Amino acid sequence: MAAHLYEHKVHYYETDQMKIVHHSNYVRWFEEARLDWMEQLGIGYDQMEKDGIISPIVEVNVKYKTMTRFGDTVVLELNIESYNGVKFVIGYVVRDKVTGEVRCTGSTMSCFMNEEGMLISLKRGYEKYDQLFRNMMECE
Amino acid sequence: MAAHLYEHKVHYYETDQMKIVHHSNYVRWFEEARLDWMEQLGIGYDQMEKDGIISPIVEVNVKYKTMTRFGDTVVLELNIESYNGVKFVIGYVVRDKVTGEVRCTGSTMSCFMNEEGMLISLKRGYEKYDQLFRNMMECE
Amino acid sequence: MAAHLYEHKVHYYETDQMKIVHHSNYVRWFEEARLDWMEQLGIGYDQMEKDGIISPIVEVNVKYKTMTRFGDTVVLELNIESYNGVKFVIGYVVRDKVTGEVRCTGSTMSCFMNEEGMLISLKRGYEKYDQLFRNMMECE
Amino acid sequence: MAAHLYEHKVHYYETDQMKIVHHSNYVRWFEEARLDWMEQLGIGYDQMEKDGIISPIVEVNVKYKTMTRFGDTVVLELNIESYNGVKFVIGYVVRDKVTGEVRCTGSTMSCFMNEEGMLISLKRGYEKYDQLFRNMMECE
Repeated sequence: MAAHLYEHKVHYYETDQMKIVHHSNYVRWFEEARLDWMEQLGIGYDQMEKDGIISPIVEVNVKYKTMTRFGDTVVLELNIESYNGVKFVIGYVVRDKVTGEVRCTGSTMSCFMNEEGMLISLKRGYEKYDQLFRNMMECE
Repeated sequence: MAAHLYEHKVHYYETDQMKIVHHSNYVRWFEEARLDWMEQLGIGYDQMEKDGIISPIVEVNVKYKTMTRFGDTVVLELNIESYNGVKFVIGYVVRDKVTGEVRCTGSTMSCFMNEEGMLISLKRGYEKYDQLFRNMMECE
Repeated sequence: MAAHLYEHKVHYYETDQMKIVHHSNYVRWFEEARLDWMEQLGIGYDQMEKDGIISPIVEVNVKYKTMTRFGDTVVLELNIESYNGVKFVIGYVVRDKVTGEVRCTGSTMSCFMNEEGMLISLKRGYEKYDQLFRNMMECE
Repeated sequence: MAAHLYEHKVHYYETDQMKIVHHSNYVRWFEEARLDWMEQLGIGYDQMEKDGIISPIVEVNVKYKTMTRFGDTVVLELNIESYNGVKFVIGYVVRDKVTGEVRCTGSTMSCFMNEEGMLISLKRGYEKYDQLFRNMMECE
């Protein structure tokens, strides 16, 4: 099945004096695309926080292949690499929208915490969200 | 008396493809300098929030005179322009540390709110903070 | 005639610990909307820089009325307030997409420079761009 | 020998609505510390770009251990993990300045390019910079 696709048009303020997108912004684009995916599946991350769950990032990895410039639009392709109720890993491929050339690949690992900052498993008492992430896996 | 001075060394990620500091960053430097001033006077803004007061910005104005580049350090000079318990206005002059050339001037107006998002006056029940801002005025 | 409209969906990384959008981001949204307008009229700002013209910001003013939060989408309405070949001023109104409530109003003044950093008038030798900004005025 | 140490005081605008530093900022702190190291060794990165060399990031990895908050200061410890003239890898440990608790660990891999965007080896014709990175290795 299809992974999640998300488009981002480069903003001028995302460039640096190398005349390319500063590498830190790709990590932000990963977040944009990840939260968009949750929203598309019917449960926005804003709702998740209102329900007392936060999902901090515990690991980010990015391999930069080619450069993105102002004027470009990129398409991010997301796939769930693993999910076990406690952690989930998403893989990202960022491509130029026009040429399809790969700009970077990457991954994020996230966990889940309650409002007291304790690690939680979505399998125990958070069925709605557990189902959400299972649905993301089935999208692959 | 002397106003508050605050130094900021330009970060590479603050530049854009014009090879100058992106104009939005000066607004962030204003914040750095403003909160540093509070801390130097003995009450950090983190403490203020813990005490149930937030201080949102209600107005920002910046006039850009000359450009700042990576490799530069700037010095911000801050003066309280007004404070009445409800709002306070700070004026900023940003200069190159080496040449003294003015990079920009600006101002911010802030208000005070309690945790319910209601506007408050520091004169009514927040004496410690009212005194803090009075002290900032006397620094001028 | 209609002014230019531009939508922006709030990103999580644009929030701060007040649980609202950090005030510096509105300045970035102004830029997004301004450059989008140029592109919609047929000449992207990336092309303008390739043609040897940069357009730095010389003044920014923002009045914050109400708060924007993660989960919100805002609509920016832009109007050219003045243009004389040397400088142009845009006025901005940012509204919540759903309720229409005004989040902030603001303005930017920009100038034009050649690659040597000299101020230029678009009326002298840059007819294509002079026409672009005249068209933006006529959109009002 | 001692590795390079670099302090960063958390800025309010670096927080997000989880009331912690947004994870993308650590990548920016890595850059601050890396460029500071070069400058401390006598050749700033601004000079390197003037000499026609850019050093884009080709890989970033971060493992987040604990959270950093507004009011905190962190100390970054940098070590060169490898350098061969073509690529160099730096390892980072970010600790709370007061408690020493590890906030995150990470690494970056950078390459070198000339102004035409061609990969270069600093061993061939860029002796001053080759020596700089060798000196960074010897600092370990």
